[in-house]
Amino acid sequence: MTDYTPTPADKFTFGLWTVGQTGRDPFGEATRPGFSAPHIVRKLAELGAYGVDFHDNDLIPLGASAAQRDQIVRDFRAALDDTGLVVPMATTNLFTDPAFKDGAFTSADARVRAYALQKTMYAMDLGAEFGAQTYVFWGGREGTEVDGGGKLLDALAWFRDSLNFLAQYSQDQGYNYRFALEPKPNEPRGDIFLPTVGSALGFIATLEQPELFGVNPEFAHETMAGLSFPHAIAQAIDAGKLFHIDLNDQKMGRFDQDLRFGAENLKAAFFTVKLLEDSGYAGPRHFDAHALRTEDAEGVWAFARGCMRTYLILKDKVAQWSEDAEIRAALEAYRVQDAELEALSRTYSSTNAQALKNRAFDRVALGQRGLGLEHLDQLTAELLLGVRGKASTAAPRQMVTTA
Amino acid sequence: MTDYTPTPADKFTFGLWTVGQTGRDPFGEATRPGFSAPHIVRKLAELGAYGVDFHDNDLIPLGASAAQRDQIVRDFRAALDDTGLVVPMATTNLFTDPAFKDGAFTSADARVRAYALQKTMYAMDLGAEFGAQTYVFWGGREGTEVDGGGKLLDALAWFRDSLNFLAQYSQDQGYNYRFALEPKPNEPRGDIFLPTVGSALGFIATLEQPELFGVNPEFAHETMAGLSFPHAIAQAIDAGKLFHIDLNDQKMGRFDQDLRFGAENLKAAFFTVKLLEDSGYAGPRHFDAHALRTEDAEGVWAFARGCMRTYLILKDKVAQWSEDAEIRAALEAYRVQDAELEALSRTYSSTNAQALKNRAFDRVALGQRGLGLEHLDQLTAELLLGVRGKASTAAPRQMVTTA
Amino acid sequence: MTDYTPTPADKFTFGLWTVGQTGRDPFGEATRPGFSAPHIVRKLAELGAYGVDFHDNDLIPLGASAAQRDQIVRDFRAALDDTGLVVPMATTNLFTDPAFKDGAFTSADARVRAYALQKTMYAMDLGAEFGAQTYVFWGGREGTEVDGGGKLLDALAWFRDSLNFLAQYSQDQGYNYRFALEPKPNEPRGDIFLPTVGSALGFIATLEQPELFGVNPEFAHETMAGLSFPHAIAQAIDAGKLFHIDLNDQKMGRFDQDLRFGAENLKAAFFTVKLLEDSGYAGPRHFDAHALRTEDAEGVWAFARGCMRTYLILKDKVAQWSEDAEIRAALEAYRVQDAELEALSRTYSSTNAQALKNRAFDRVALGQRGLGLEHLDQLTAELLLGVRGKASTAAPRQMVTTA
Amino acid sequence: MTDYTPTPADKFTFGLWTVGQTGRDPFGEATRPGFSAPHIVRKLAELGAYGVDFHDNDLIPLGASAAQRDQIVRDFRAALDDTGLVVPMATTNLFTDPAFKDGAFTSADARVRAYALQKTMYAMDLGAEFGAQTYVFWGGREGTEVDGGGKLLDALAWFRDSLNFLAQYSQDQGYNYRFALEPKPNEPRGDIFLPTVGSALGFIATLEQPELFGVNPEFAHETMAGLSFPHAIAQAIDAGKLFHIDLNDQKMGRFDQDLRFGAENLKAAFFTVKLLEDSGYAGPRHFDAHALRTEDAEGVWAFARGCMRTYLILKDKVAQWSEDAEIRAALEAYRVQDAELEALSRTYSSTNAQALKNRAFDRVALGQRGLGLEHLDQLTAELLLGVRGKASTAAPRQMVTTA
Repeated sequence: MTDYTPTPADKFTFGLWTVGQTGRDPFGEATRPGFSAPHIVRKLAELGAYGVDFHDNDLIPLGASAAQRDQIVRDFRAALDDTGLVVPMATTNLFTDPAFKDGAFTSADARVRAYALQKTMYAMDLGAEFGAQTYVFWGGREGTEVDGGGKLLDALAWFRDSLNFLAQYSQDQGYNYRFALEPKPNEPRGDIFLPTVGSALGFIATLEQPELFGVNPEFAHETMAGLSFPHAIAQAIDAGKLFHIDLNDQKMGRFDQDLRFGAENLKAAFFTVKLLEDSGYAGPRHFDAHALRTEDAEGVWAFARGCMRTYLILKDKVAQWSEDAEIRAALEAYRVQDAELEALSRTYSSTNAQALKNRAFDRVALGQRGLGLEHLDQLTAELLLGVRGKASTAAPRQMVTTA
Repeated sequence: MTDYTPTPADKFTFGLWTVGQTGRDPFGEATRPGFSAPHIVRKLAELGAYGVDFHDNDLIPLGASAAQRDQIVRDFRAALDDTGLVVPMATTNLFTDPAFKDGAFTSADARVRAYALQKTMYAMDLGAEFGAQTYVFWGGREGTEVDGGGKLLDALAWFRDSLNFLAQYSQDQGYNYRFALEPKPNEPRGDIFLPTVGSALGFIATLEQPELFGVNPEFAHETMAGLSFPHAIAQAIDAGKLFHIDLNDQKMGRFDQDLRFGAENLKAAFFTVKLLEDSGYAGPRHFDAHALRTEDAEGVWAFARGCMRTYLILKDKVAQWSEDAEIRAALEAYRVQDAELEALSRTYSSTNAQALKNRAFDRVALGQRGLGLEHLDQLTAELLLGVRGKASTAAPRQMVTTA
Repeated sequence: MTDYTPTPADKFTFGLWTVGQTGRDPFGEATRPGFSAPHIVRKLAELGAYGVDFHDNDLIPLGASAAQRDQIVRDFRAALDDTGLVVPMATTNLFTDPAFKDGAFTSADARVRAYALQKTMYAMDLGAEFGAQTYVFWGGREGTEVDGGGKLLDALAWFRDSLNFLAQYSQDQGYNYRFALEPKPNEPRGDIFLPTVGSALGFIATLEQPELFGVNPEFAHETMAGLSFPHAIAQAIDAGKLFHIDLNDQKMGRFDQDLRFGAENLKAAFFTVKLLEDSGYAGPRHFDAHALRTEDAEGVWAFARGCMRTYLILKDKVAQWSEDAEIRAALEAYRVQDAELEALSRTYSSTNAQALKNRAFDRVALGQRGLGLEHLDQLTAELLLGVRGKASTAAPRQMVTTA
Repeated sequence: MTDYTPTPADKFTFGLWTVGQTGRDPFGEATRPGFSAPHIVRKLAELGAYGVDFHDNDLIPLGASAAQRDQIVRDFRAALDDTGLVVPMATTNLFTDPAFKDGAFTSADARVRAYALQKTMYAMDLGAEFGAQTYVFWGGREGTEVDGGGKLLDALAWFRDSLNFLAQYSQDQGYNYRFALEPKPNEPRGDIFLPTVGSALGFIATLEQPELFGVNPEFAHETMAGLSFPHAIAQAIDAGKLFHIDLNDQKMGRFDQDLRFGAENLKAAFFTVKLLEDSGYAGPRHFDAHALRTEDAEGVWAFARGCMRTYLILKDKVAQWSEDAEIRAALEAYRVQDAELEALSRTYSSTNAQALKNRAFDRVALGQRGLGLEHLDQLTAELLLGVRGKASTAAPRQMVTTA
């Protein structure tokens, strides 16, 4: 049995803002001091991570002088060089500064929109300086509480203009970023624009260079809306748009919890890992989470280690699941193939349409067939709970094939 | 003051299944008998509706003989002819029959998928026979409870194949339907595929003939996921994809209630009407709702009348809102235009980018400006509550313009 | 028509922390500076409020010297004396200080629990000094994210010990506070103990002096759990436990929004006002809300004025509703009285039981009766929208009486 | 390693309505035929269950003749006698019949309220005939969609009168039932009265004989409101009111799913089992769930077997958790005891109060202590996933003790 110790080959990444989070929340002050960027880099390297990501102001505080900026960049690069950690992704902080209180790219104030473009261009420069290849947009302040402001349609147009602008900037500068939109339904705004993975996919279709844009689904964000995260990433994979991923955990229908990966939904976490591993997703496994506010520095690193260990444990179970004879039998019993009907259904022709219209179906029999999904799901549950052996000899349910 | 009596020019439509609903629910039996299709047509005409919509089996029961079908069609057409009501939209019932218990176009059983195609082609024939121009797909059973079934990616591919097939069938038959996908997050399935308006927009971008497909957003469905319905339809309008709309009401985070339009969220209903009226949406205002289970026939018609009256009351308020001087002043104060910056931001050029990068912004001042949204929102609330006069002379907040 | 300008007789109160909130949130910094306590008092008086409430540290910052404390108290009292505003309620801040990060009365650390008792006694002294008669407990940090900590049962015992202790302290000092527990389901903790109004009522029954304890229901908190606020306060009124109330607004199933009263749910706000006014609730109408983060000082006062105006508008509508002839007729039609059956049902005796067992009921007829609730609800909606005249002559539905 | 095969000593029970459910839902027809009561009894006995529960009409259909009733009772008793299964709990169906469409004990129609009393007395007779000792009240129709009906306060009074009446009937007949209220937030009503476990506990305090009443918490119902089920049952245990329990599973914020125990929330299921086992709860482990609609008869029994197996697996893990040295060390490190402060805090006296007020606390140090909860929670996750050995020798975090 593996000891679930991560290595860079596992491609685990963390944002500077994740392990650096200080425990401040809407009702309380910081409970721990945070760490410098170089310290985070060295510590993550020690734990087996692959890389680190940042918002511009995670690294360079607002208002830093040029000299301060240079020193910070040097120190950060030294830590990266020492450890071999990479920076696969970068992003812009467009939410902390009060200037963005009513949106950045979608502010009703044209000056704020222009400032957001400026800030993002500089942040893209910074990301490129560290080799980031994916650029994430999380529009935390892009939204409304007061729809009477009347900007719902304008906001989408402004948002689109900004993304089109920045995509060209990226090409023009030779950065060749892949852009990943990160949806969230609410918080800090009452309703955030592009609230779900699907919304982002829909919006991408309206951009000038849709091929440059994909999504950065976050487990907690989709879960806040009561939606299935595996379903969301399946749609992104289906569309060829899974450019990045934010792993964490969350209870449905509440504030953004950003819990340790696997802390709440072991089953959804398992199917998330399964989709990532089975689909050939080659990007970073990024944890966008933070330690509980009850934790000190030691707890922060326990949190980071836990995220990675749980991923590796689940990845191991994904392999076990695929090889489990009883599970394979249940899957075969569940699926009914019919080569003739599939040929007729796959592609339209008037002949196929007529053949299907003429076909007699026994709809009652189709409705009576038991699908064995309780059995299959229980097998999954027991595999997750670690009480299934590596080999199983249980008699399979009968597979159904026709035609 | 108008008496809020609808006329066909208001384009109000109801599904046969809405006023025909009998009050059966998961925990109880029907509380009223339902009505025949011709009776519904005549009664809706009397109330001032424009049209009526149907699933195939709302009109023709499963298993009806050819003779029965013909008689039903004749009686229904007679009622339409007598009253002038139209059938702008039709759809297929792919959820009641146990055959579809694990999905129709996304069933793991190839025979069910083929049968769903067959059933939909016949239903499209029926709809076309009555002049329907919009064809709705609500995939009520397209989803999962057991993701271990492993069909998340296959299901999207099967769904896409089916929609591509049916779009060609429509063109080939000369029906020239516009197709509208109706999203829903869950119920009756644990997780339904394409759960939100955004998801449907994202999926449409992957179809062969995306221009034939749009969305049919439903107030209750988007609200179940805790999302803003006005925001969802704004995205659909922005994408040119608002092909149809289902109006009703619902509390967030619970079972599908299908309440009378305006029964819960007067404010969201107001902004819904405002978006429809302001955007030039020319399609039917369709109510996909039903009377409470406590109601008899009289209550059903009170329900239908109430849906239409509330729409008209809110439409009246939309006009009043747009003319309210104090509201207009608040809106002007809220928006800050800057012709120079807007010109630089709208379209990328390296010159524009450099100009923006060189620009000095006073981010502190931008963050300090008060936006007056509490004031504006209170004006809206008071207008909705009917306590604002038609004219207002209140002093406006100061508008900000720069440059 | 009234102009909806509040007076102290309306008993509107605000917490210092409400209008004093600075707009800081989990993702952003403060957007406005806040106000001194005396300034708040003078401004609220100018707007027509009745009183002001505080947490100990709203008034006296943690770590203030004795001299600073005395000066603050003097200034605050002077403002109260000048304006006539009262302090009907006080409470303790047991959530901001990192010491309370895992709970105050329910911390797993005995020292923290003791410190929470100490802090609360001093805060009760301070509240009594300003004449507060109601003492609120909001246990913002009393909860868990990690149930593995194993304190679920201990925590309730510790909480009970603390409340029993403090109730005796209040009596012993002659403060004679009435205590009001304020429930909240989550945020900032993953799950907060005593999450709903009902939970608090259930817990009170386990205290030593339950008669001293009631509840302080908050609109937003109950709504976060997707529960009906009118239903919650009805249960509190029924139990004689509505000791205080926190009015604001909120969407279901998301982070704590603390919106302006009436900003989201005009209908639930109406039924809230109706229950308060009809039940003879004589306590303060306390607004526990804050202005949107987009607002400056002017917006804060617009927010405060809006809360009060909306209450008064709805109070006016409550009176109109009660006098509306058509609504009264619908109510009479809805209710069926039967003196004989009510006498048999109200009080148990073996004779009554036997009489009921022998009675023949026509259950089919009972199920067929239409209740007219769509009609009644539409009348309410139209009254809320301000489109019903003060007098109505519409023909009532038929009232049913039997026996 | 055990093979997780249940025996009657495990006290697993199922309702007749659970395995008998036919798959009918709001959008579709039954997908399987259901079973006779004797068949259910024999099959459950074969699977190792302890007992079976019923609503009156699960056993005796509405409108059965006396002769039919007698035959049904004989057949059912024969099956019980043959198998040794017991009937520990019974209840009344007050939701299926349209007569109860607006409530049973809380209907606005006095005749319905009286009929509900009658029906319940007969159902209590039937339950007693089979030895049931716990009587459950689930008020599925007790609620509203239209609060304008104005019965919120009356309804609670009627509900109380009914429960008081029926408690006396039970005593008078010598049944000596323990009554268990089963809360649910919504569905089928928009808002159900007594929506949470806490609400029921609060209501019990207002009854004439509160000692006869406890709660029957259901996992799915509490979860629908986004509340923690372990927290809810902890409050019930704390109050001495956990009279019965309904185990199943559910996603938050959606329709009532009644999934197989452990199907969604393995961690919450674990803490549920832990609380039941650790607290000495001696009642039935009742599964109030049903097989997915995709299943045939074979799937129904797979579902039933799965519920019991998952409970036993988790029970095994509860024992393992309690013995895990690393977990025990983390727990000791988490809790800080202080005998002197605990003595001062536990019981009020003016001396204790003064001693606490005089005590100097180092609040900064209290806030800085790391609690090790990420570490503990990760250990729990890994234990649940079955990747921790039975013995652990990991170095414990340092325990803190003071005084």
